Amino acid sequence: MIKTPYLLFLGDAPDQLAAKVARGIGDWRPDNVVGQLRLEGCRADVGAPDMSLQEAWDKGARTLVIGVANRGGVISPSWKAVLHQALDMGYDLASGLHNLLRDEPDLVAVANSAGRMLHDVRIPSVKYPIASGVKRTGKRCLPVGTDCSVGKMYTALCMEKAMHAKGMKATFRATGQTGILITGDGVPLDAVIADFMAGSIEHLTPDNEADHWDLIEGQGSLFHASYSGVTMALVHGGQPDALILCDEPGRAHMRGLPDYQMPSLEQVRDMALSLARIVNPACQAVGVSLNTSAMGDSEALEYCRSVEKRLGLPAVDPFRHGAEPLADALKAL
Amino acid sequence: MIKTPYLLFLGDAPDQLAAKVARGIGDWRPDNVVGQLRLEGCRADVGAPDMSLQEAWDKGARTLVIGVANRGGVISPSWKAVLHQALDMGYDLASGLHNLLRDEPDLVAVANSAGRMLHDVRIPSVKYPIASGVKRTGKRCLPVGTDCSVGKMYTALCMEKAMHAKGMKATFRATGQTGILITGDGVPLDAVIADFMAGSIEHLTPDNEADHWDLIEGQGSLFHASYSGVTMALVHGGQPDALILCDEPGRAHMRGLPDYQMPSLEQVRDMALSLARIVNPACQAVGVSLNTSAMGDSEALEYCRSVEKRLGLPAVDPFRHGAEPLADALKAL
Repeated sequence: MIKTPYLLFLGDAPDQLAAKVARGIGDWRPDNVVGQLRLEGCRADVGAPDMSLQEAWDKGARTLVIGVANRGGVISPSWKAVLHQALDMGYDLASGLHNLLRDEPDLVAVANSAGRMLHDVRIPSVKYPIASGVKRTGKRCLPVGTDCSVGKMYTALCMEKAMHAKGMKATFRATGQTGILITGDGVPLDAVIADFMAGSIEHLTPDNEADHWDLIEGQGSLFHASYSGVTMALVHGGQPDALILCDEPGRAHMRGLPDYQMPSLEQVRDMALSLARIVNPACQAVGVSLNTSAMGDSEALEYCRSVEKRLGLPAVDPFRHGAEPLADALKAL
Repeated sequence: MIKTPYLLFLGDAPDQLAAKVARGIGDWRPDNVVGQLRLEGCRADVGAPDMSLQEAWDKGARTLVIGVANRGGVISPSWKAVLHQALDMGYDLASGLHNLLRDEPDLVAVANSAGRMLHDVRIPSVKYPIASGVKRTGKRCLPVGTDCSVGKMYTALCMEKAMHAKGMKATFRATGQTGILITGDGVPLDAVIADFMAGSIEHLTPDNEADHWDLIEGQGSLFHASYSGVTMALVHGGQPDALILCDEPGRAHMRGLPDYQMPSLEQVRDMALSLARIVNPACQAVGVSLNTSAMGDSEALEYCRSVEKRLGLPAVDPFRHGAEPLADALKAL
């Protein structure tokens, strides 16, 4: 677990997109954010108050989160002075970069002498078990996508928010680097050793109250030749009671695979249900989440309505329209 | 790389299946095996002469191969005395367990002071790529099973032998520690990082002559809650042209999962074909491989005949009856 609250480090982010990790934290866990720290030339702003290390420390911040990804995912030399100073002051550091904090000898030396933690959320910090396949108490929902990066994480986060608003018990369970930094905990599934993938998801979603929902962050797609094994581990380790079908309409082909057509939502539904029912015969597809960010308002609403009719399931863009219909679908199950 | 011949260490294997690593080596490279070493309580027997470390040493054995796998792949404390003694006598150790020899400080200390080698064949020695999904030249066959340990590796090895006897071009491609110990090359798939699983299989089965067959060692089962993600990566990374359906009749439940029923061969065929055709629309199920080791001769033949009729595909126990019908099925494709 990463100590909260955070000071978000935006470094010298060249644009808004480079700070999307920080923005995710600010959007989804505003209570965990004391402020943002920007270096000269920074062109990103996640809307949190600008603060020095000292100001944020005085307001309770205990972890400096590197919320910026530059090209290549490296730790920039120009960040080092601030990172050293933070460690000396008592901050832990957290990062989801490919370039690990622990692979920087100077940071390790300062952290060791100051007694601070370096959290590299890109790699697992837990020895996961082999999956047992044993049924757990409580309920689980998994968004499954036609493709990678269609909005599965946002779907789960939007649903958590909508469910909390309805007084339902729900916990977002992070399986990727951004999700882990947002919540401070989770499984970096794409970096887990193959044999322990499903076990890591069982570990992430343990026994719970009968009316509690785990909202598991999805990864990859059963139809994506590069990452389908990761998705399979989510389906079998998660033992979902409910699936949300996720799509971004308009893609010409699978992400990174120009020779591969996108599957239909019906194909995703049928394949995912067949596989999920091996571990949970009661599993149902209960809703559709559509990433309509490329559409105008009326086009987006019209598209959702047409999918709703076609699939016979509530279909929304949860980031745009709210996830209430998906939360209601879980409530009705 | 690993010194031969071997003494096969069976430890305190609770059953015959737990010693399948040793049995694989004994069956496919008998010339490399001097004998077997069993501890008190061992319930496995691979048919090699029982020997002490000293007897085997005198007959030329130079590597003690840990040919037993317990659940979770750990090095049992009860094995340590023998392993220390072996290193002191001059043996190298070789193991395919998840729990690495090199991660046991006591073994490392004894090996270093005795000048011996610790071979962990489970460790990937290559930085595998992300799968591209691009079609390769040459042909590929993948055995897919109802369950773990039903005979997928033996099926591929038997088919290689039968195909070579017919003058066909065929290469067994190892994906597990036993296969790697047998052939000296391959991908330790269950130890590969999740994101690179399918890519490792593309790497293992590259472009080849148009009439060459890769016979890919299968792993796990699409129906096994613990390991299905690994199987999925074989199906999508391997892009098989042909599937062999593998089963061991008579199992009461899935291996290690008492709450899970075995799927039928028809279920395995339908699920595996649906998934394989995402990456290779021409993929066919061409034969059935049955592990009839628990049956008498006439019962085994009768069972194969009944499955052949039921599935409309050649059905044999390739280890018992030879794999010619399966080789012919590939030839006819």
